[in-house]
Order: sequence, then C-alpha cells, then structure tokens
Amino acid sequence: MEHRFQNYSLETSNRGLVRALQFERLQNVMDAAWTTNRFYREQWTAAGVHSSRIRSIEDFTARIPVVRKQNFMADQEDHPPFGWRHDHAMSKDEQMVICTTSGTSGQGVEVHASTESESRMAAEVYAYGFRWAGLVPGDSIFVNYPVTLLGGGRIELRGAEGYGLTVYPIGNYDAARKLELLERFQPDGIMSTTSYLGHLAAVSQTLPPSSKLKTMMGGGESGGYAWLKRLTEQWDVPLFNHYGATQTRVDHMFPCERNIGTRKNPGMLHNIDPYFLMEVVDRNSGDQVSDGDEGEIVVTSLFYTDVPLIRCAMGDRAVYHDPSYCPCRRPFCGVEIGSIARIDDMKKVKGINIWPEAIDDVLFGFDNIDEYQITLDSDETEADLATIRIMPYDEPAVQNDAAFISKVATALQKRIGISFVVELGLPGSLPRSEWKARRWIDNRVHQQE
Amino acid sequence: MEHRFQNYSLETSNRGLVRALQFERLQNVMDAAWTTNRFYREQWTAAGVHSSRIRSIEDFTARIPVVRKQNFMADQEDHPPFGWRHDHAMSKDEQMVICTTSGTSGQGVEVHASTESESRMAAEVYAYGFRWAGLVPGDSIFVNYPVTLLGGGRIELRGAEGYGLTVYPIGNYDAARKLELLERFQPDGIMSTTSYLGHLAAVSQTLPPSSKLKTMMGGGESGGYAWLKRLTEQWDVPLFNHYGATQTRVDHMFPCERNIGTRKNPGMLHNIDPYFLMEVVDRNSGDQVSDGDEGEIVVTSLFYTDVPLIRCAMGDRAVYHDPSYCPCRRPFCGVEIGSIARIDDMKKVKGINIWPEAIDDVLFGFDNIDEYQITLDSDETEADLATIRIMPYDEPAVQNDAAFISKVATALQKRIGISFVVELGLPGSLPRSEWKARRWIDNRVHQQE
Repeated sequence: MEHRFQNYSLETSNRGLVRALQFERLQNVMDAAWTTNRFYREQWTAAGVHSSRIRSIEDFTARIPVVRKQNFMADQEDHPPFGWRHDHAMSKDEQMVICTTSGTSGQGVEVHASTESESRMAAEVYAYGFRWAGLVPGDSIFVNYPVTLLGGGRIELRGAEGYGLTVYPIGNYDAARKLELLERFQPDGIMSTTSYLGHLAAVSQTLPPSSKLKTMMGGGESGGYAWLKRLTEQWDVPLFNHYGATQTRVDHMFPCERNIGTRKNPGMLHNIDPYFLMEVVDRNSGDQVSDGDEGEIVVTSLFYTDVPLIRCAMGDRAVYHDPSYCPCRRPFCGVEIGSIARIDDMKKVKGINIWPEAIDDVLFGFDNIDEYQITLDSDETEADLATIRIMPYDEPAVQNDAAFISKVATALQKRIGISFVVELGLPGSLPRSEWKARRWIDNRVHQQE
Repeated sequence: MEHRFQNYSLETSNRGLVRALQFERLQNVMDAAWTTNRFYREQWTAAGVHSSRIRSIEDFTARIPVVRKQNFMADQEDHPPFGWRHDHAMSKDEQMVICTTSGTSGQGVEVHASTESESRMAAEVYAYGFRWAGLVPGDSIFVNYPVTLLGGGRIELRGAEGYGLTVYPIGNYDAARKLELLERFQPDGIMSTTSYLGHLAAVSQTLPPSSKLKTMMGGGESGGYAWLKRLTEQWDVPLFNHYGATQTRVDHMFPCERNIGTRKNPGMLHNIDPYFLMEVVDRNSGDQVSDGDEGEIVVTSLFYTDVPLIRCAMGDRAVYHDPSYCPCRRPFCGVEIGSIARIDDMKKVKGINIWPEAIDDVLFGFDNIDEYQITLDSDETEADLATIRIMPYDEPAVQNDAAFISKVATALQKRIGISFVVELGLPGSLPRSEWKARRWIDNRVHQQE
C-alpha cells in the first residue's frame, strides 16, 4: 500500500521521539495557561496542582483535572460572552476565529475561539487528513457545510483552504442543486456529515456524479464498520471519516491509507500526536486504557497557547489503539474505526446499554436495508418495547417477508442481546436523515420525566 | 477631518505617478492576456489590435474592445464549465477561488474564478475600504452574507479575514437571531446588502444593538443620497456603501472619510486606482466622460494576470469625478455617491427615463416615509399610469392626509418630471425588502410582450 506522508520525518519517526516532542510542547502550553489563563489556573489550584511541578506526560494525565462542557458553560455564564478562558486572547486585540457549538442545549451556546495564528496552525493538522485521504494541494473539494458561527463549516472551510484546495462552499444548496454542481464542476473530493454522503448517493442518478471524485471525507458523526464500509463502496469512492469537535477547533484524528481496514482488523483513526495529546480513559478510574479497550476520549492541544485546551473530556467513548496496532507504522496512537459514539447517545433498553452504532453495524450489514427507525415504547407493564422499522431498497416480494424479518431479528438478538420487534416497510416509507442520523424515537414512560 | 490612510505614499501621491503606475501594471496584464488567454486574444484579434502596440492608457481605452456578460456567457457555453478565459489558470493546477454570479439570468450561471494569489491581492484592495470606513485589524465584524458559490459572501469573507478582522459569518440566521448575536458579541462593524441594514434597524428595539458598532458597510446595491443619508443616521453609525461585482472579484470603489458628503457636494466612491483602471464612458461614443458627467462604468484589473479582466463593461451607469472633486485629495478618480444604478433598472414611464434611485432620493428625503411601492399600469388608452403607495412610520392623523400627499406628489413631479398618483397606507401595509429593494411592480401592457 502506497504511503501518503504529509510530514515524512514525523510520520516515520518513533514513539519515543513523538512522546518527547509532545511533552516539550505540553510544557509550553501549561506555562502559558498558568500565566495567562485564569480559567485553567483556578481549576488546577482547586485540584492542588501547579503546572511547573509536572515532570512527565504520565504526571500530567494523573494530576491535571479534566474539563468538561459544564466547566465551559459555567465560565461563560459568569463572564459573558467569552468566559475567562478567552480573556488573554481577547486582550491581544488580534484577529480571531470565533465559533459556537451545536450541542445538546441548542445551537450557539458554548463559545470556542482561536487567535488567527492558532487557527492557521490548526490548518496544519487538517493537512494530514487531506493528504491521507488522497488529496493534494490544487485539488478541488465541495465543502458541504453551511458557513455559520458553528465550528462545523468554518473549520472545514479554513482547513481546506489552508491545505491549498480549491473550495466550493455548497452547504446552502439543496441536494438536487448539489448533484448538478458536482456534475458541472467535477471536484476531486467532497466533505460532508457522514450520513449526508449516503443521502446524496441515494438520491443521485449517476454514480458518482463527479467522475473525477477520488475521495469523500465524512465527519460530525461516527458509524459502525458495516455502515462506513457501505458508504465507502456506494460510488466506488473511499469515504474517510474523521474526528474532531468545536472544542478542539479542528479535526485531529484521521484514517491512514488503510481507511476502514477489514472486518477482522478494522482501520484506525490516527491522532495527529505532534499537535494533540489524546488519551482514552476509563470513566471510573480515570486511567488510560490499554490497546483494544474502551474509554472516554480526552484531548489536550499541544499548540494552542492563546486559548489553551487542556484535558478536555469529550463525552465520546472509543476503543483505544497503540500505534503498533496499525500496519502503516506511523508512531501515532488512535482509536478504532467504527468504535466512536457519544456517551450521551447510549440507550439503555431492557437494562442493556445499546450504542446506536452497534445497531447500524448489524442492520447495514444486510445489503438490502436502506434505512431504519427504532421506536422505544413502554408496554402495559411499563417494560421496554423496542420496535425496528426497516426500509429496504427494493420492494419486498411479500409485504411481510417472514424469513428476512426473522434473519434480522436473530442477528440483532445475537449482537445486542435483547429482542426487537422487526417490521418491514416499503421503499420511501421512512425519511432519510439528511444530516446527523436521527433514528431513535423514545416514547418510553421513563423518558417522559 | 482625520485622514485614514491604508497606504500613505500612494494616497498622498499625485495623479501623474498613479497613471504611470497604472500603465506599467496594465502592460503586464495585457502581455499575460495576449500570451496565455485565448478569450481575450480572440476578442482583440477580431478588433484588429495587438496588445504590444498599446502605448498609453488613452491608446488602450480607444482601441481595446469592451467585454460584457454576453461574451463571458458565450465563452462558457462553448467551453464549459469555465470558458477559455480560465484555461490558463486551471492548467496551473493551483488552488483557486471560484465564484458564480447571481445575475438576471438566474443564480450560478456566469463563472468568475481567481487563483489563490490573485484572491490574496484582491484582499489588499478591500483593505482600503475597511480602513477608510474606520476599522483596524483586530476589530470584529458581522458579515451578513451567506457563504455560497456566489461572489457576494465569499468575497466579503475573504476580504475581511485578509484585512485582519475577526469575522462572524451570520448570513444564514434570521433577523431576530442577528440582533441577538449583535447584542451578545458587540462587533465593531457589520457588512450587508445596503437595504438589509435599513431592515435590521427597522426591526430592532435597541439603537444600535451593538454599543461598540462604529461602522456599517453596505454593498450589492446603490441608493440615492437621501436614502444613504438616512441609513447613515438611523443608529448614529455611519454607513459606507461600496461598489464591486463578481466579475471584478472584489469591491474596488469605496467612500473616503467624507463618506456621503453633503447634499450640495455629495461624497465620492474612490476607485482603488493602483489596482483597478476605472473608466466611465459615454454609451454612444465609447469615450471617457468629463468630471460630473454620466456614463457606463468600465473596469480593468491591474493585477489579475492568471485570469485577466480587461475592459469589462459593468452595465452600471454613474456620474464620473476626477480626483480633484474630493477634498480628501487622494489622487484616485471615482464616481459620485448616489449616482450608481443598473442600466437595466432604468424605467421608462410616460416616455421619461426614471432611475429607481432618483425616486428613493425624493421619497426618503421625507422623514416620515418608511417604505414605498410603485405600480405601473396602463390606463384604458394604454397610457402609463404610475401609482406610488407610501408607508409612513407613524399612523397618519387623517387616513388620507391630503397636504402630505400633495407635498410628495409635487416633489416627485418636480424631480422626475412626470405626475404620480400618491396613496398613503398604514404602517405595516407594505413588505419591507430584506435584500435588494424590489419596489417596482410593472403591470403595463407594453411589459406583457
């Protein structure tokens, strides 16, 4: 497999050198935060730590407390509109890039800003993702996010422009117009929320609408292996799904050339270690998990000194992998493709934790399933009742194709561990999710609180 | 009056030096076009001119043919999607900024692209506009244009970022959200289509919603003196209205510190002469008009060598002014504020040419007029009948305030030269135009062809 290196010396370096570089950069970041950033200094003081006493990355992860959405929100509410964490950067009277989050509490609540120089450095991180996905400067890309105050959209636009791509901002157009523009301008790539790429393929007549299309870059949502595999195969154009957030102000985990890998050895999202320190920690102990184990993603930027981001717990769980996991031999750690999910998205049904991605994985493993919807109800005893309505690509031979239904129900029972009522609909009977998939309807009594 | 110089030496230079610089740059541009651009070479060859024979700016304007929308369209139709004029730039396989026009023939038809380096140079032109309007790098601005494939939006975003402003892209939000964001983030400036700034003021409760707001930058449409004056006064924040087009890929005429000036000596939009050669030509003879005379704007870029723009006739008419017209003493020529109008927008009523801007000027000279609508009908003899419906700010004392109506009718007759039926409505009786003003309804028989 051809290696696509964005920075040859770093990507062929060894783990020890990468860790040393990380710690050096981390010290800079901690010094800046301690000196200029009241938000972090107060958190650390409350935890009884002084940044100058931190002697190693292990020391850092053991002693520096994590910050979460709640901390950012409290900071902003006490010191609107930017919070103490932005005071230093704002006082420089320099150009900034100011983004808000979409978040569960409604659009535009949480603010995360970068100085212009931080934002330019962030574009260097994105460059790895574009390069690994097969794009080179001068290539063209459709950026299918509206450009608003949200991080998603602005970040992609700046990342793609920073890498040297010709960017077509098409986020404001409808699907028919996008397909028409794809045919007219024949881009090399397209960036979008992941499920929208499936939507676009489903509504398009030509496959793919741009004959030059060599890569798709998905983001904003994760998905199980089978779903990602299907999206990768739909136009015979690979889909590279990346990871990042408004808090990190850039996507910072990307698949290498192996992309999703194989079912037996799934691919890996490589963290861009020289720019971000990524931990996956056990939610109970707070300790880093071992290769192949699951935990919460915690991120520290190694280059934001104007507006630091230090040990931000992302509310996402994933399966961690050491650099050695991936045959590409890059000395960067990462997480397993198809293993990321919002911790908030977890559904507890009949006492069992269910990650929507696991359902995706089972259902999209069936070639004939186009879309699905799950309704959770409470039966007369207030016990959970889970119904999966399935929309096939082709009209089933018999409306209630009993054999197919039974096959799906068995697969679900086997993988998820609970029984589902499976119903088969007609093509067109379910809405196809244009943006982030919204497939769960929870009508249960205990959800009404 | 304080001078705000973006480039002190150029802005305090003399006309002779500016013209010499222009011709030097023009020769580069012509050489590049002749050598690499089949679109221009064919136009010139057909006109019997070779660019190397051009010995002066006067020579250039006399012998090089103008290009128009029709030429661009024909080029694209013959060589889709970009036309011959983009062949050279596209062959460089470099990053580009690709925009389409909104135009009369529907969105997205005409394509105008720049290489990244041309686009960066264009941002230098915009810097004059920001500086003259009172903004300095590090200031923040709300950019109220959606970012799409249209020139308007992308150009402003890149211009503002290139100048060093903190940009809030708010074009996708509704007016209520924009006002809320203005209050929350307190920007120093806002950019928008001109009439939207009036709309925003009309629907806002606080004046202005950002207490830090020191400038508004209008664009995308022109307006009469009275209208611009009113917009300038509504929040006690000056409105600087600029000029440019997707074809020029940057706004390139801006008001200096005098802005709209006075009724007797209206302000001037200064062309950024070192970057653009601007002519105002008589539509019949094709000759440059004299100071104070009206003609069509013709623009040549002096720095686009990858995708030249040479003698592009803009379809806009304006009153030309020599540099000496403006007391600011900048050695740049320009056009008179309030004098620009689409040639296509001209209405012929009762045999008289009427520019909508002239109507604006009369009506918005009355303090109590909020909005208006003109309906053109044909009476039973098929003669034109022009009715102006006026929406006042306050409910009139008597529904048909005869004295006020007669005053308006007299003012219109005096300025426009024809009689109008004037009707007075109630506040709220007319829609307020959110984007470009659409105030004319033409139901006349001769419009039905």
